[in-house]
Amino acid sequence: MSKLQVAIVGATGFTGSELVRILCTHPQVEIHTITSESKKGAVYSQLNPQFKGICDLELISMAQLDWDSVDLIYLALPHRVSMSFVKDHHEKNIPIIDLSGDFRLNDAPTYEHWYQKEHEIPELVPSVAYGMPELHADQIGNSKIVANPGCFPTSSILPLAPLVAEDVIEMDSIIIDSKSGVTGAGAKSKAVNHFNTANENFKAYGLKKHRHTIEIEQQLNGLSDSEVRVQFTPHLLPLDRGILSTIYARPKDEISDEALYEIYRDYYQGAPFVRWSDQAPTVKQVRGSNYCDLYSTYDERTCNIISIAAIDNLVKGAAGQAVHNMNLMMGWPETQGLEQIPLQP
Amino acid sequence: MSKLQVAIVGATGFTGSELVRILCTHPQVEIHTITSESKKGAVYSQLNPQFKGICDLELISMAQLDWDSVDLIYLALPHRVSMSFVKDHHEKNIPIIDLSGDFRLNDAPTYEHWYQKEHEIPELVPSVAYGMPELHADQIGNSKIVANPGCFPTSSILPLAPLVAEDVIEMDSIIIDSKSGVTGAGAKSKAVNHFNTANENFKAYGLKKHRHTIEIEQQLNGLSDSEVRVQFTPHLLPLDRGILSTIYARPKDEISDEALYEIYRDYYQGAPFVRWSDQAPTVKQVRGSNYCDLYSTYDERTCNIISIAAIDNLVKGAAGQAVHNMNLMMGWPETQGLEQIPLQP
Amino acid sequence: MSKLQVAIVGATGFTGSELVRILCTHPQVEIHTITSESKKGAVYSQLNPQFKGICDLELISMAQLDWDSVDLIYLALPHRVSMSFVKDHHEKNIPIIDLSGDFRLNDAPTYEHWYQKEHEIPELVPSVAYGMPELHADQIGNSKIVANPGCFPTSSILPLAPLVAEDVIEMDSIIIDSKSGVTGAGAKSKAVNHFNTANENFKAYGLKKHRHTIEIEQQLNGLSDSEVRVQFTPHLLPLDRGILSTIYARPKDEISDEALYEIYRDYYQGAPFVRWSDQAPTVKQVRGSNYCDLYSTYDERTCNIISIAAIDNLVKGAAGQAVHNMNLMMGWPETQGLEQIPLQP
Amino acid sequence: MSKLQVAIVGATGFTGSELVRILCTHPQVEIHTITSESKKGAVYSQLNPQFKGICDLELISMAQLDWDSVDLIYLALPHRVSMSFVKDHHEKNIPIIDLSGDFRLNDAPTYEHWYQKEHEIPELVPSVAYGMPELHADQIGNSKIVANPGCFPTSSILPLAPLVAEDVIEMDSIIIDSKSGVTGAGAKSKAVNHFNTANENFKAYGLKKHRHTIEIEQQLNGLSDSEVRVQFTPHLLPLDRGILSTIYARPKDEISDEALYEIYRDYYQGAPFVRWSDQAPTVKQVRGSNYCDLYSTYDERTCNIISIAAIDNLVKGAAGQAVHNMNLMMGWPETQGLEQIPLQP
Repeated sequence: MSKLQVAIVGATGFTGSELVRILCTHPQVEIHTITSESKKGAVYSQLNPQFKGICDLELISMAQLDWDSVDLIYLALPHRVSMSFVKDHHEKNIPIIDLSGDFRLNDAPTYEHWYQKEHEIPELVPSVAYGMPELHADQIGNSKIVANPGCFPTSSILPLAPLVAEDVIEMDSIIIDSKSGVTGAGAKSKAVNHFNTANENFKAYGLKKHRHTIEIEQQLNGLSDSEVRVQFTPHLLPLDRGILSTIYARPKDEISDEALYEIYRDYYQGAPFVRWSDQAPTVKQVRGSNYCDLYSTYDERTCNIISIAAIDNLVKGAAGQAVHNMNLMMGWPETQGLEQIPLQP
Repeated sequence: MSKLQVAIVGATGFTGSELVRILCTHPQVEIHTITSESKKGAVYSQLNPQFKGICDLELISMAQLDWDSVDLIYLALPHRVSMSFVKDHHEKNIPIIDLSGDFRLNDAPTYEHWYQKEHEIPELVPSVAYGMPELHADQIGNSKIVANPGCFPTSSILPLAPLVAEDVIEMDSIIIDSKSGVTGAGAKSKAVNHFNTANENFKAYGLKKHRHTIEIEQQLNGLSDSEVRVQFTPHLLPLDRGILSTIYARPKDEISDEALYEIYRDYYQGAPFVRWSDQAPTVKQVRGSNYCDLYSTYDERTCNIISIAAIDNLVKGAAGQAVHNMNLMMGWPETQGLEQIPLQP
Repeated sequence: MSKLQVAIVGATGFTGSELVRILCTHPQVEIHTITSESKKGAVYSQLNPQFKGICDLELISMAQLDWDSVDLIYLALPHRVSMSFVKDHHEKNIPIIDLSGDFRLNDAPTYEHWYQKEHEIPELVPSVAYGMPELHADQIGNSKIVANPGCFPTSSILPLAPLVAEDVIEMDSIIIDSKSGVTGAGAKSKAVNHFNTANENFKAYGLKKHRHTIEIEQQLNGLSDSEVRVQFTPHLLPLDRGILSTIYARPKDEISDEALYEIYRDYYQGAPFVRWSDQAPTVKQVRGSNYCDLYSTYDERTCNIISIAAIDNLVKGAAGQAVHNMNLMMGWPETQGLEQIPLQP
Repeated sequence: MSKLQVAIVGATGFTGSELVRILCTHPQVEIHTITSESKKGAVYSQLNPQFKGICDLELISMAQLDWDSVDLIYLALPHRVSMSFVKDHHEKNIPIIDLSGDFRLNDAPTYEHWYQKEHEIPELVPSVAYGMPELHADQIGNSKIVANPGCFPTSSILPLAPLVAEDVIEMDSIIIDSKSGVTGAGAKSKAVNHFNTANENFKAYGLKKHRHTIEIEQQLNGLSDSEVRVQFTPHLLPLDRGILSTIYARPKDEISDEALYEIYRDYYQGAPFVRWSDQAPTVKQVRGSNYCDLYSTYDERTCNIISIAAIDNLVKGAAGQAVHNMNLMMGWPETQGLEQIPLQP
């Protein structure tokens, strides 16, 4: 059987190289094209020596993309560049998985408020599937364009969805204290990801205004009749990969740890990449893999629920979830090509 | 003028070596004795080569301590060993600064509940000063025994005290999400501080039951008529030094950032080691120093206050605060010997 | 076709868990048994949560091993414990791949000199294959017991073998300056792998007497008529995985970089895991994979050859090479189960 | 007594901020001016929050420098910019300590060969003192312009000088395998110091052609009648601060470890910042301090001497050595303002 020919558009970022890492071993996929405007003409494995002998494609410009030979496109472009690409090409009707933030929100006005930028194809926004397989598998399977979730939202929505959907918590009591590795700040060199700035250091950033806040709220609102409001605070961890989100919420009633476990177990029954962790999970126990490890407990003394999620921001939070979405769009087994075992230590 | 002769009892931990680092350059102090049961007979700088030529004392056993020559004692012993030492020697009336948890709580029954251990001198507990100079300078100055605060409590009480004392927040709404470097787990080798366990990793631990919870609550309760209850969750950062505490609380009324700034400014007027940070502080900006950098903001969208504190857990969270306490006990200038400038990068 | 049933004896170390990681996705292998004396009775994935849902075997004691059901044994035991196991069981004639140092040297007297321990089965030593596939594929393929090479020797012999075998260099001029990540110091907690000792730190150790010295010399001597002598100095890097060996040697005659490249290319023709690197390789470009990336250049100014090798000490330096050996012993394709792509970043 | 008024020209790099850290506590110095072209007008402590309340000067442009009020200038400019500054201002006769490479070499033609740039004031080059106090204290004390040594040369010349000056080794046998922390790559964000590039990674760079090679050779040649030639290979360590140089050389005759110790002891008698280490030193044992810790041993098996030096590249390798030079130029005690104790852990 011939393999699905995919293009990765914009492959010089970390999301792009992570897509290459995963897709190179996917049994039903062949990477046909990798594009880069800044590095076109270069051999991919010379820029990324880890791929020598594994992926030695020559990078081409987007404009050179051979639309007739490509069956599916991963967009690993910066926000805003992505929507231009979609605007120009979505009528070609080739499946697109967009890893930027341009189509994650439900409506263009909200996008414009939080991203401070006019949307170029507002009419398309409401129809794009939000690519979180645990919540929207059917819609993803029937979509031509999928918006791949943000990394922080993935680590926040998965632990919160069961509590919101089952009406366990007060919807205005949610506090999400998230911590991400430095790959979350991108491959481009800048002050925030300078080694001597990030190393041996830790800080909060984007207080009160991070764009992932609204993405989380919109998804959770889709699960509840009440209005969900979250306090979301990202932090920067001195490590490469991983997000840990520690989430606090007030339950409507006292609840036992056993009951919490059952809520999660039932909600994620059949979800191959959500694992219940017997204790507070670590980011290293999922590194390099598509797992989201979850833990939740109730504190009788304070009457709070604490839920914790650990993911690899580049895999479950980006490239792995994108491949998962592709599997759904193609009608393939969900776990295909995503069996990478966490790399620990 | 002859210098104060001090003894550091139990110097093989990180708190002990940090006391040596600070006291070696204190202008009015001479380190007379360093004790260690496990390493007695060894030369201190052979165990800790950074001190070669700086502190080459031979370690002796506690039992060999020459009480007639020593003017003040730093106890850097494990919890529970510390109280035995105090029990045996407190009547000698030599000033003691205890860096363990044995005398930090207000009363013995609470100690016994949270530390799961009978207290050996319960009658002494209520009279020991809690050595946080910003809150209890007078009492410290008049005490013979001072309990040096825990590292997490230092990073939690300082950002919360003004909000509690000024009755700004709902006292049952406090969530403290704290993150500490690995030195917090001690110098003894164990699974939690194995390099390959901690490196490139991050996790929460001690959920719902960490002993520092009650220490924070007791101190804050001392500032309020209402009962203060805190949700305290520590996390382990893959770095050597530093604690960042991100704190969430609901204000009783809407409040402006300017008003928050003024509350902190007024509360800490004259406190030489509390600095207001113009943005969310990082742990590296205080590394190696006795500063606590604070920031606080109000989120109009969610109606939460977010306060953030950064300290070096071994300095402001342990040895530096202990030296600060000594300065108060001796009637010396508060900042003496504590002018270390943060080491960044 | 039924899968090969393998046992991993001694799985609580890093080599053991890395074998599990690799073997879990090997298409022709099933992990039948994992043993541990200290953790017997525990579920493997509770000790190592990264494997939850992937490998949930219950650990048993060595003594409980069901010899009738096992087709091949990986020994991931400490030095000296390993030879006792081999002594007791080698007559059962089940293939054994020993990852300890007990059978790596050519003869028992040399072992006894460098390991300071009597060998329990000296008569077996000379017949055990040295499991470096690039040098001894045939012998490995015909062996029942294979001694898996040390991590430093792997990173030293591979870059040196072509230069020695082709008689390019003076055999007494070799200097090997090696740097290893902390996993090389083992999973057991001790001072050397305490996070706060290793982090932000770097040092040389084992000067003049590290046991890997003789292992390197013996293998290189097998390739040359002259006596090879190496100066080997290991260092400890503040990172999890990876060895980089920087090697200096005097060539017998001037040589061009092009000639060096050709010597390596020809020597490793058909070796699937040796890659030529266009520039000095990094340890991260091979992390998690079985590659050894090599680079070599001649300095006309000083008349030295500099050769550099990068490997993942747990994969090419241990578990991956062991699986490679199994593939050879079973007559399977060399790369089977070893297609892990380097995890960067 | 009024304090010496110093200017730091070019303070946005790491060398600049380290000068600020050290000079802020120097008892005879006041920082009068800090200049920055890119950040002029900014308050220094807003760019570097560690200095809040410690150094809150407003940055000015070089052109605004008030020459009448400044007694000494530290040039912390990039290579090549530095020589232009010196060319324009050296006739003002104000003492200058230049931390760039522009005046470190003995002659302009050699500079032009290794730096690939014409020198703007070649006639000045030979008269500038090389600011390594252990070798050139008298000349430094009598100079108006001092070239502060490179970080790698400091870590290479100090362990080699005694062996070369005492004619212990073959002068063409020297191999210097150096490893530096990432601060050595500067404060400007670029690929090499991107966190995700440097973290968990290690590599050699600048093979055969690093400019520090010739600086090392020229200084050692000044100590020997024979021609010294060194193989110098720098590597990049995943840590902030520190250089460890592992040096190999063939002695002319067999030598004992005791004899080596005595050579170093005698050579560095009275040198306050050179410490003999009883075992191979680590970079962390000198972090934040002006020490150079040395160790040397002879390998009877291979007939090589191995010498190891550890420094903090920003202190002994840059700002600390510069302050040491100032102390000599001013006739002050050598250690004044340089008593920082290493920060470990």
